[in-house]
Amino acid sequence: MSSKPLYIDNLQYANWSSTLFEEMKVANLAAVHVTICYHESFRQTIENIITWNRHIENHPNRLMIGQTGHDVRQAHQSGKTAIIFGFQNCSAMEDHIGLIEVLHQLGGRFMQLSYNNQSLLATGCYEAQDSGVTRFGRQAIREMNRVGLVVDVSHTSERSCFDALEYSTRPIVVSHANPNWWHPSKRNKSNDLIKAITSAKGMIGFSLYPHHLQNGSECTLESFSQMIAESANRYGIDCLGIGSDICQGQPNSVVEWMRNGTWSKDRDFGEGSANNSGFPKQPDWFSRIQDFPNIKQGLQKVGFNTVEIEKIMGMNWLRFYDENFDSKDN
Amino acid sequence: MSSKPLYIDNLQYANWSSTLFEEMKVANLAAVHVTICYHESFRQTIENIITWNRHIENHPNRLMIGQTGHDVRQAHQSGKTAIIFGFQNCSAMEDHIGLIEVLHQLGGRFMQLSYNNQSLLATGCYEAQDSGVTRFGRQAIREMNRVGLVVDVSHTSERSCFDALEYSTRPIVVSHANPNWWHPSKRNKSNDLIKAITSAKGMIGFSLYPHHLQNGSECTLESFSQMIAESANRYGIDCLGIGSDICQGQPNSVVEWMRNGTWSKDRDFGEGSANNSGFPKQPDWFSRIQDFPNIKQGLQKVGFNTVEIEKIMGMNWLRFYDENFDSKDN
Repeated sequence: MSSKPLYIDNLQYANWSSTLFEEMKVANLAAVHVTICYHESFRQTIENIITWNRHIENHPNRLMIGQTGHDVRQAHQSGKTAIIFGFQNCSAMEDHIGLIEVLHQLGGRFMQLSYNNQSLLATGCYEAQDSGVTRFGRQAIREMNRVGLVVDVSHTSERSCFDALEYSTRPIVVSHANPNWWHPSKRNKSNDLIKAITSAKGMIGFSLYPHHLQNGSECTLESFSQMIAESANRYGIDCLGIGSDICQGQPNSVVEWMRNGTWSKDRDFGEGSANNSGFPKQPDWFSRIQDFPNIKQGLQKVGFNTVEIEKIMGMNWLRFYDENFDSKDN
Repeated sequence: MSSKPLYIDNLQYANWSSTLFEEMKVANLAAVHVTICYHESFRQTIENIITWNRHIENHPNRLMIGQTGHDVRQAHQSGKTAIIFGFQNCSAMEDHIGLIEVLHQLGGRFMQLSYNNQSLLATGCYEAQDSGVTRFGRQAIREMNRVGLVVDVSHTSERSCFDALEYSTRPIVVSHANPNWWHPSKRNKSNDLIKAITSAKGMIGFSLYPHHLQNGSECTLESFSQMIAESANRYGIDCLGIGSDICQGQPNSVVEWMRNGTWSKDRDFGEGSANNSGFPKQPDWFSRIQDFPNIKQGLQKVGFNTVEIEKIMGMNWLRFYDENFDSKDN
């Protein structure tokens, strides 16, 4: 076993390059859950997988595909980073329940039920009305449970989240968001919801995206760490991880596309505004992927011990992968 | 290890049903290479994979996906049959080299470079002119070598076969055909070609499709077995297997589609004729999947010993899987 710590960032969507893959190494990231779909169809998602296959082929000593907890341990031992594919929307399965297993066979391990808007499965957190998980959604959750594609409700609205939790026979996650009691926002989650999800062996990955942070770009590491300490008090230590949501190097055209896809001819600003429409500035202490280890200092200062810090920064996600990435048929 | 023999049929395209899956068990088939593409596009092939995923889900104690030799041994030990996906044509990769790895990730392990007609990769055995492996074909073979998608030249014409052998850095196969010196036909292979392929650690799977047999439907087990004995003399024992090409239960509309796909408004009869346009009648001693063990008696009568029979009926393919289904990156 490598003597270096095993860290996991359970959500990134950066402008990928050899430079950023090296930052993953500097940060001791044994695994990164990367977004490969926001609005794409199945066929478009295949192109994104092909792009990632090429990244992995071109960086054989740096990257490997991550489909199991075992893969993550192998990556850690060999100084690589395991890349775990995830979908921030269910668009990749289109209206076809059979595509769920295909996406899992191709390495998909997390799928959000909706991305801000109503989807075929569930309501998104920006809709005025939350009608809950749909008929197809209920079938899809059952199939996701069967094959080992984790239900992620990060951008899903409250009632739909509770429905998903009820229908799912396996733990579900908020891969990247923070508690509403720390910073109220449409994307952050209620205390009741986090409590319910984590009580059912689910996870929350704390987000470093400024719109999810108290004081936005000016959020301090101390405040962020105190929020995690309070979360540990409320939900226990074993369900907490990091899903930074870092979009390093992406041009502002990308956040516009994330918000508008092909669904609108108007311009939706999401968590931003007309005056602040681009990617918000990251906090100084987490401006890039290689800043990940900085979180450790914050957690130390608020009193977490070494084992607790290792859990939050990677080992909790690793345990979750071990328990939830396999097929129930096995 | 199960005391039952480990048999492998390296090519079937039957009208799949629970009944036929049970026949595989009766036949002690630890693995079957099944065709999932003749003329289909990538997206259509995905539907065929989804159909197979459903078969496997619905027969959890009978079937499992087979992606490695290890899977085949597991299937054998647990009384299951490992299903290995293969493509009789390169249509599933369309014109996109990136789809080769995707198809491998989805379980594809054999791909023919062409099916009777000229393809984007190579010339088929029914074309008047054989222009050899194309520019794209050469790139595709390299990528197939890299990911572990075996080059199959069963329906490819002679020069293109030799080109493929030259360009491929890994062994290539004839999954289902017989030697031309036993029964001349466009689909059977020349002595020189078989010698070259098997000298390079490739395999030939002997076909039980009547158009490939001496005396067609009336071919005797003795004649078939003598052909295998002579093949062992010429090429050695370790490169011989079975690829029966059995199409059990398929209606004649299927063989018409196999021959004509969507490429012709005329009617092509392939190896048949206007007066004999349907599936030919199988020999009595191999009329269905569960007849597979009958081959053993024929091989015994022509003097093969127990170890040699086990090699021909399964162990040679198993060794080939061990050596050729992995990625070269690993």
